[in-house]
This record gives sequence, C-alpha cells and structure tokens, in this order.
Amino acid sequence: MTSPPAEPHRVVIVGAGFGGLEAAFGLAGAPVRITLIDRRNHHLFQPLLYQVATASLATSEIAWPIRYLLRDRPDVTTLFANVNGVDAAAKRVLLDDGDAVAYDTLILATGARHAYFGHDEWEPFAPGLKTLEDATTLRRRILVAFERAERETDPERRAALLTFVIIGAGPTGVEMAGTIADLAKDTLPPDFRNIDTRKARVVLIEAGPRVLAGFPDDLSAYAHASLESIGVEVVLDKPVTECTADGVVFGGNRLEAKTIVWAAGVRASRAAEWLGAPADRAHRVQVLPDMTIPGHPDIFAVGDTTTIADPHGKPVPGIAPAAKQEGRYVAALIKARLSGGTLPPFRYKHAGSLAQIGKRKAVIDFGWLKLRGNLAWWIWGIAHIYFLIGLRHRLSVALSWLWIHARDQRAARLITQGSSKVTQ
Amino acid sequence: MTSPPAEPHRVVIVGAGFGGLEAAFGLAGAPVRITLIDRRNHHLFQPLLYQVATASLATSEIAWPIRYLLRDRPDVTTLFANVNGVDAAAKRVLLDDGDAVAYDTLILATGARHAYFGHDEWEPFAPGLKTLEDATTLRRRILVAFERAERETDPERRAALLTFVIIGAGPTGVEMAGTIADLAKDTLPPDFRNIDTRKARVVLIEAGPRVLAGFPDDLSAYAHASLESIGVEVVLDKPVTECTADGVVFGGNRLEAKTIVWAAGVRASRAAEWLGAPADRAHRVQVLPDMTIPGHPDIFAVGDTTTIADPHGKPVPGIAPAAKQEGRYVAALIKARLSGGTLPPFRYKHAGSLAQIGKRKAVIDFGWLKLRGNLAWWIWGIAHIYFLIGLRHRLSVALSWLWIHARDQRAARLITQGSSKVTQ
Repeated sequence: MTSPPAEPHRVVIVGAGFGGLEAAFGLAGAPVRITLIDRRNHHLFQPLLYQVATASLATSEIAWPIRYLLRDRPDVTTLFANVNGVDAAAKRVLLDDGDAVAYDTLILATGARHAYFGHDEWEPFAPGLKTLEDATTLRRRILVAFERAERETDPERRAALLTFVIIGAGPTGVEMAGTIADLAKDTLPPDFRNIDTRKARVVLIEAGPRVLAGFPDDLSAYAHASLESIGVEVVLDKPVTECTADGVVFGGNRLEAKTIVWAAGVRASRAAEWLGAPADRAHRVQVLPDMTIPGHPDIFAVGDTTTIADPHGKPVPGIAPAAKQEGRYVAALIKARLSGGTLPPFRYKHAGSLAQIGKRKAVIDFGWLKLRGNLAWWIWGIAHIYFLIGLRHRLSVALSWLWIHARDQRAARLITQGSSKVTQ
Repeated sequence: MTSPPAEPHRVVIVGAGFGGLEAAFGLAGAPVRITLIDRRNHHLFQPLLYQVATASLATSEIAWPIRYLLRDRPDVTTLFANVNGVDAAAKRVLLDDGDAVAYDTLILATGARHAYFGHDEWEPFAPGLKTLEDATTLRRRILVAFERAERETDPERRAALLTFVIIGAGPTGVEMAGTIADLAKDTLPPDFRNIDTRKARVVLIEAGPRVLAGFPDDLSAYAHASLESIGVEVVLDKPVTECTADGVVFGGNRLEAKTIVWAAGVRASRAAEWLGAPADRAHRVQVLPDMTIPGHPDIFAVGDTTTIADPHGKPVPGIAPAAKQEGRYVAALIKARLSGGTLPPFRYKHAGSLAQIGKRKAVIDFGWLKLRGNLAWWIWGIAHIYFLIGLRHRLSVALSWLWIHARDQRAARLITQGSSKVTQ
C-alpha cells in the first residue's frame, strides 16, 4: 500500500463527489499531502443523472475520471478503493482489502444512497438513482417496457407495461416524470408500430401535500400544472404502502405498473456508524458548526452524509452547491489551522433552487427572484452546462440537448447489460 | 405476437447489423411487409468498437436504436426478440419465448461471435470484442489494471498488471494494441503517482508470419514498424497455447499478464445449424451465388454468418462493406423476383482495406492505391465519420477525436458495471 510520506500534514478525503472534490481543489497550495479515496474511478454530476436514466445523455457526458480532474496536482494521490471503517484512535482509514491509510486530518464526503423507510424489499421493484449503474439500469427498464408492450397483445398486460410510476415528487421525481413523459410523447411515437407510446401513463406519487416541497407554493403549483399539461398524472397526499413486480398500492388503490422509479428518500453513508457519531433518522452525521464530528476535531464530514443547520435554523439541503460550499469551507479551515489560526463557523448561502419540468420548462427560486417557464428553462440549461467541468463535456451536453430540442432525438437509447431476456 | 397481415409478401430479416439493415433499406418501396428481428435494440458500428473498449468513444457514439433508423418506414416492424430456430417447412422463424413469425422470404443476417478454436475455457481470461457489453467489459479490465498497479507494491505483480496481451494481429488486434499503447503513453501518465504508465507493456501475439495478413506485404511491414515505434511488442509465428488468469503461454514462453484481449478468430451464428445447411469450419453457411441457402430458395443469408467466393475465387472478407453489398444485393433480388424477374449472381467489389495504427497513422489498400502514415490516417478518420449514420453521431465522434488528438483526453474512461472489487 502507498502511504504519503510522514512529513507534510496528511489529509485523507473519502469520496470524490461534490464535497470531497471541492475540498481537494480548495487545498491547492497548502502544505499538505492529500490522499483522495473513492470506490468509483469517476466523479459524477448527479444533478443530471436522471437524463442518463431517460436516454437523454450518455454516461460519459456527466462523469469524469477522478484522476484526470487532479492530474495537475502532484500533492494529490487518488486511490480506487473501498473504505469500510475509520480507526480514529490510530488515525487510520480502513480499506476493505485490509490496507489502511494514515491521516492527520480526515474529511468524510461519502454521500448517501436511496432509502426505502424500512421497506428494503421494495428495492428490486423500485430502483433508485444515485450511480451511473442505477441510471443505466433504469434506462434499460424503461426502454424494455416499451419493447415488451410493442409485442404484448393482452390489453391489461400492455397497459401495465405502459404505466410508469415515480415515487416521490422532489426535484428528481419531478424531473424523471417530466422526461419519461417527453420520451413517450415526443421521441418514441414514430418508432413503434403496434402501440401508441403517447398513451403511456406517467404517474407521480407523493406522500406530502405538494410537488417540489422545497420550493415556494406558487412555483410548486406551477410545476404541478406544468406536469399535468405534459400528461403526467400527479397524486398527492398518498404514501405508497406496497411495491411489487406488478405495481404499487397507495391510499388503498392498486396500480398495475411494470416500471417503478424510487425518488422518495435517501439514507446517508455509514460514516456516522464508523465513528459512533450522533446522527439523525437518515443516518446523517450531526456535525458541529465547523463541520467536524463531535469529539473528533481532526475529522470533518461534508455533503449528503451530514446534517447541519443553515443561518435560519433550517437544515442545509442535500444539493450539490451545499456540498461544494462545505468542502470549500473545510479546505479553508484546514489551511487556517495549519498557519495557527481558525475560521468562524460554516455559514451556508443558498444560491437558489432549480428543477426542470419536461423539456422546455423549469422553475427557479433565487429567493430574490422567482422564475418559471421557458426563460427559467434556458437559465436552468445554461447553469447546468456552466457547472459541468471542462469545455469537452459542455460541448457534448450542449450537442445532445440541441438534438433533443430540435428533433426529439435521444442518442443514448441503448438497452445494455442485458438482452431481451431481461426480467423486470 | 404480432404478425404482419397475410396479403403483402412477408420478408423477415433476422439481425440488424450491416447486412440486415442494408437489406431493410434496400427494400424501401417494394410491395412487402418487413419484420426486422434483433435481440439487441441497437445497430452497432462494429469497426469502431475497439475505441469504446479503449475509452476513446462512448457507447452511444457508435450505436443507434434500430427502431429510430427505421422510424420513417411504416412497412417495417421491429421486434426486440431472440431467434432460436427456423421451421423451414412451415416457413416460420422461432423465437425463444415460444412465439413464431411467418415469412415468405427470410434473410438471415445473424453475424458471428469470437471463437477460441476449441479452447472455450479461455474466454473468461481473454474476452473478445463483438458487442457493446464486450467493449465496456474490456474497458473496465484495462482501466482497473492500471488502478490496481497504482496500489500494488510487489514489482512482479505490478508488472503483470501493466502487461497487456492482444492475441491476433488482424485489424482489430492491431487497432486495440495501438490504442492501448496510446492510452498508456499519452493519456494516462499525468494521472498516476506511483506508476509510470509509459512503462506498460503492450504485446501483440500472432500465430501467422505477419500483422494485417489481409494487406499487401509492404503495408504489413509498415504497420509492424509503426506498432513498434509506439512501443507495441509484436510477436509473430507463435500460436498461443494457454490462457489463464495470470497470463499466456506462446512458443513455450510464459508471459505474466493480467489483461488479455482476444482478437484471433470468429465463429458464425447458429444459422447453418438451424437449417442443416453446409458450412465451413467457422460455421459459416456456404451460400449459393445468389446468396440463398442450398435447398432453400426463399432463405437468404448475408454477412459474417456466410461464406462466399469473390470474383477471383477468394472468400469475401468479413467486413462491413461486404455485408452491406450482400444486403443490398438480396434486397434487389427480392424486388426483381416480385416483379417476375431475377438477377445475375452476387459479385463482391472490394473497395479497400483500412486499419488505424495508434492515433496518427493508418494503412489503406485501395488496390489501385496504397497509402500509409498520417495522410492515410486522415482518410481513415474521414471515411469512418462518413459511414456513421446521421449528423448527430458524426459531430459527436468528431468532437471526441478532436479532444484525443489535441489533448490526449479520452472522455469515456469510466469503470462501470463493477466496483473496486471487480476481479479480473
């Protein structure tokens, strides 16, 4: 195993998502040696992952090799490895192959997975969306459902194949529902002979009283109306009580559906467990105002694996800009500490909330400005292209979107990792 | 199951590769109803598949949904299904789910897989390259080998991880070897800290006396020298006698290598077996001069699943242009037959042979003109972009190549369908 030499201050970062990567970027020039550990070889732009699941973008358009992003940083060593614990007494991160990596300061940026609220048995029927594999799995299920419907003669089975249920109406659920509706109504119709894909049902089921609960009421109402205008059926105040291979039950109703997407909740990584740290119900570490873990001033945690209050006492949302701000703060605090100083507590600044609704509308809440409709969609698109890393990915995504908008053509309609025998 | 109505002449095409698709295109306007059956939902541009395996192109850049390619052809119904037999007496194609599709004329364009010459036990250690999944599997193995080498401290194990063996020096083997060498020598060096990826060994092993045996001697010699100039070790006249998880044996020598690529041979699909038709050693159907199967004037076979002689008595090569010519011929012959006529036998016209050697050289043999070097590379690149279907894919591939050539950046360096636990 490679361990950095002992002399400079050793920072180990676990996780190369938005928070971990930003911490590594923020530590540029500091007198440290950094080891960045991730079990994937790529950084993923999760805000656009639903576009891979719906065949709008290719996997390589929203992912970058982690090593490539840090190629100009000789102070950073990237390890492709699975962390499965922390020995805080010995100050070592434990890898699942038995190796260990020593740290002076540790940053845990290990993210979250989707969670089923005590119903893990639903996962095979209602997969969630956190990794590239999740996205290509969902893409395969969605495309295979249309293929099977084309060959199905029994009207009930055909209807179940053409019913797509999305559970959870946060941004991911709303974006998935809108994009599946676009796919069925605009992209696919000319390609099928036996079915009218425009008759596919897209049903968005939410346990709470409105869609996009994190947005102001009027934008929620607009998003709700917009979804209905592109044919999405929105069901509110109905928690799902059962998921099977054949459909869902909500509010006592049974809906036959062969494709179910889970967008209803997340559970943090095992970081809290590794350290016996205080955590909330979603297993998020309750960090101190300087983003350290209580009792461990040398261990920081950032991003989706943590919970912390914003200046108004509300929890900081689990979104990319929050994780990046936290990563940047931790890098700055480490630098300050190394020169004998410190920093005031972390303060989250909410820049805004954005969600796309179908291919030509969006809602944006900047606080001081609320936008909706086509103009919001343009800002949404430009902002997302801006936040991609590097010209290559920006050009590629712009090209893909141009084709979707000009021609309703989605280039990534590939059923892979399976054959026609794939079972749903 | 959907069967076309009985009145118009029913053509069933099995396989949407170059031959099958070209037959469908060629039948446009004919008084027929076509059913195109494929077990994949996409047409694949196989000549560039090695670029997916080497992280140069994304999967969606060389594949198209079959339905999308035929969306403007209401006479064509596309079925996503597995064929597992032909009932020639009842004139039905049998699907593996028990359904059957009736035909008046059948075109078998079912392609080939790689073959191990009686050593099927080598497949897990030396995967071949025929499908998108093959390509992403190879890509994962190649990238994971570098990742493991970065963490390996034992010099022998590290050397084995940094040794890449390609078996077979036809175009695919030469192109794989050259591109892996480019990856190791130009793309990856700045990204690693513990290994010098430029020291990776790329060993191309060929049983015959020269590389690119299908090309003239002088171009073979040029390709050989060019491969060596970019660091590929070329071994000739040495059949491989053993493949294991740890390496290969050839000519009595054992070479420790953790990554082995099989590019040494193909075996046709089971079309010959389905019909009890005469076949060669590679299971290719020996078709009659009109591309029909002996004893079955209503069943054609085209492409890699067949063998037929060219006007000089040599076998028609297993390349995309040959399959396309055959598909076009069969479509024309069916049209001629439907209006009571016939056509002279199929005559293959060899347009040329092309192979890329690393990222800036190629060899081209047009018969009347032989080219090599950088100019040949430009012609190779332009020809391949030209043969892609549609402006969208052409722009996307051009963009990817631009980045490779200007910056040695390969956007598709993603390890997917596995984790760091992936075993090789």
